Amino acid sequence: MAVGLSSEVDPLPVAGVRLGSAPLGIRAEARDDLVVIELAAGTRAAAVFTRNLFCAAPVTVAKEHLGREAPRYLLINAGNANAGTGARGLEDARGCCAAVGERAGCSASAVLPFSTGVVGEPLQTEYFSAAIDEALARLDENGWTAAAHAIMTTDTVPKAVSRQFDVDGQTLTVTGMVKGAGMIRPNMATMLAFVATDAAVSREVLDACLARATEQSFNRITVDGDTSTNDACVLMATGAGDAPAIDGSSADALHAFERAVSEVCTWLAHGIVRDAEGATKFITIAVREGRDEEECLRLAYEVAHSPLVKTAMFASDANWGRILAVVGRAGLDGLDIDAVRIHLGDVCIVSGGGRADDYTEERGQEVMSADEIAVTIALGRGSARGTVWTSDLSHGYVTINAEYRT
Amino acid sequence: MAVGLSSEVDPLPVAGVRLGSAPLGIRAEARDDLVVIELAAGTRAAAVFTRNLFCAAPVTVAKEHLGREAPRYLLINAGNANAGTGARGLEDARGCCAAVGERAGCSASAVLPFSTGVVGEPLQTEYFSAAIDEALARLDENGWTAAAHAIMTTDTVPKAVSRQFDVDGQTLTVTGMVKGAGMIRPNMATMLAFVATDAAVSREVLDACLARATEQSFNRITVDGDTSTNDACVLMATGAGDAPAIDGSSADALHAFERAVSEVCTWLAHGIVRDAEGATKFITIAVREGRDEEECLRLAYEVAHSPLVKTAMFASDANWGRILAVVGRAGLDGLDIDAVRIHLGDVCIVSGGGRADDYTEERGQEVMSADEIAVTIALGRGSARGTVWTSDLSHGYVTINAEYRT
Repeated sequence: MAVGLSSEVDPLPVAGVRLGSAPLGIRAEARDDLVVIELAAGTRAAAVFTRNLFCAAPVTVAKEHLGREAPRYLLINAGNANAGTGARGLEDARGCCAAVGERAGCSASAVLPFSTGVVGEPLQTEYFSAAIDEALARLDENGWTAAAHAIMTTDTVPKAVSRQFDVDGQTLTVTGMVKGAGMIRPNMATMLAFVATDAAVSREVLDACLARATEQSFNRITVDGDTSTNDACVLMATGAGDAPAIDGSSADALHAFERAVSEVCTWLAHGIVRDAEGATKFITIAVREGRDEEECLRLAYEVAHSPLVKTAMFASDANWGRILAVVGRAGLDGLDIDAVRIHLGDVCIVSGGGRADDYTEERGQEVMSADEIAVTIALGRGSARGTVWTSDLSHGYVTINAEYRT
Repeated sequence: MAVGLSSEVDPLPVAGVRLGSAPLGIRAEARDDLVVIELAAGTRAAAVFTRNLFCAAPVTVAKEHLGREAPRYLLINAGNANAGTGARGLEDARGCCAAVGERAGCSASAVLPFSTGVVGEPLQTEYFSAAIDEALARLDENGWTAAAHAIMTTDTVPKAVSRQFDVDGQTLTVTGMVKGAGMIRPNMATMLAFVATDAAVSREVLDACLARATEQSFNRITVDGDTSTNDACVLMATGAGDAPAIDGSSADALHAFERAVSEVCTWLAHGIVRDAEGATKFITIAVREGRDEEECLRLAYEVAHSPLVKTAMFASDANWGRILAVVGRAGLDGLDIDAVRIHLGDVCIVSGGGRADDYTEERGQEVMSADEIAVTIALGRGSARGTVWTSDLSHGYVTINAEYRT
């Protein structure tokens, strides 16, 4: 189902990072749904989390722990979000971190917990001990693919990718994986993305790099406009590679690193949209010629969230009137509708307040029939721009979300 | 399919109003899709229109004509919205008004045009002359039911209702009809509502009464968050009844009139939601204890637009975590999540930052299984409140909107 994604991923190992997956044993089907990630001593980590006020217990605990010391382990479970679970949820998240710490010989606060799945159910902690043991026993530098599978919920394919770059003739690697297909409108980072590198990078550089990369990737996608309670994105730098530290003293090295992280984050963010619940289309909404980036992004999200636009995309129907109606209702102060131009791919569909003179249904249909569709809206009143990526609204989306808990 | 609506309507005639319906003859199926409404001389009318900047040609023309003189005729067609049609659309709308005026012996600007249907197609004006002739020949005080059928597009049932009230021992009537089932988030008035009374009412009283009634009815519903290009609501007072004028000199008469109009508008607005595209549930979202009405309504709309909440409603799934997630992401500044309480019907589902202690799936399920569901969110930080009404998101919605133009 995923648009333009393969079900095979081939992430490169990252020196200093080992991953182990195991089944909690709660599910009817036998599959791994718990992951432990081990980080070499000296690893630095930056993270961004959901801004949802009802943030999940593991988000609260991960923030606490990250404020105390550098993480040595990440513990991830899929199937239960441990969100909306009050004081018990916090206790459960802390207990799971302690269980990893006892076995691995580190403090509980050197463990960061992450959960994804159903909101509002207590975590079934009695299943965790055995699964943690098994995951620790399986720790492997080549564990990325199994882990990318294990963190999936309604995802249909695992999503992981690597980029490499050179510093002083030494090759360094950035590898990332992500899960997420619904309840997607990240407002900081999306549902559980983990990106690691063997570069040696200071915490300050990591923080800045992650903020910039997420802002242009995870914070520019939407499936259904619903920001999750569990969003988290972690960037980890083990320093276990052979190249010198990336600390800002070499602009070239810093630039190469930032570019690799940005490419990985963008690929993962697009991966979420391509694998969005029920998605049959990958849609780019670009707004140009706005007064400022804020109005461009606001309009792009309005278009991306319109159920009428999304169902027309599902139907491959060049129903441009629905796009035009969104532009008109988006509350853009003083917009001159006669100056607005809308393109589907390369085909101009709207200009002068109505259908473009040379537009034909055939030309629109050709663009709409493809799996990947670009909508460009030029506002004709400035030079700002903003782009978001989204999916269509299909029967598959309704089925998945009507049946998720059953 | 419509939730709690009958396919039979029984609107009362209004003295001074006659309606005639006819087929344009464009459709494959033979059905009426053009309506002419004739108003007695001396009728006063108030109207509210969409705030969509890309407003349709008939909206522009209706505003112009209403500014020039009191209307004697309304001309409505269903199937083509004459929106996004540029200069030609304006010409077509004016031409249709002139065609009615010539036949009826009044000026073109005494005719108000209304269109609903597909956006962006030119009006097929060549079909209008014969249909206008036929509709004029069929003008009848009892034409409301046929007209309520003729203005339907994706509506599954006609929607019309009446209320009566007494002034000085004389009975007066308010009758209204509406069409609308998708592209519904009125920002002024909804897709084509027509309300008439035989009361004698000044234009000032009519304007104020319509503004108040629409604000609490049509402006409180949403199906898919998409404000139409063609929204219009007209309130007409013929003065053909026997009671004295309602001019504000009798507070009782004014109050009775306002109440009747408000009840008709609320019934019609609820009717749109009950007959919403693919709807299987009628959902009330009430936000209480907010700082001001604006934040209550903003949150209520966020919940009403959440595809995850709407699909859970379709599935009759008490997935309260999705409601909680929306409250958390809605951007309510400084909200104390521990003070928030959420009820499904009479059942408290969330308190103290998580699932309510005495909540059980069985109690939640009982509420969700009904056709009509009330969600109440108490914010615990003020005394303001706001309510909106909405529908669920079903396979039917996707089917209707993926196939609308095919």
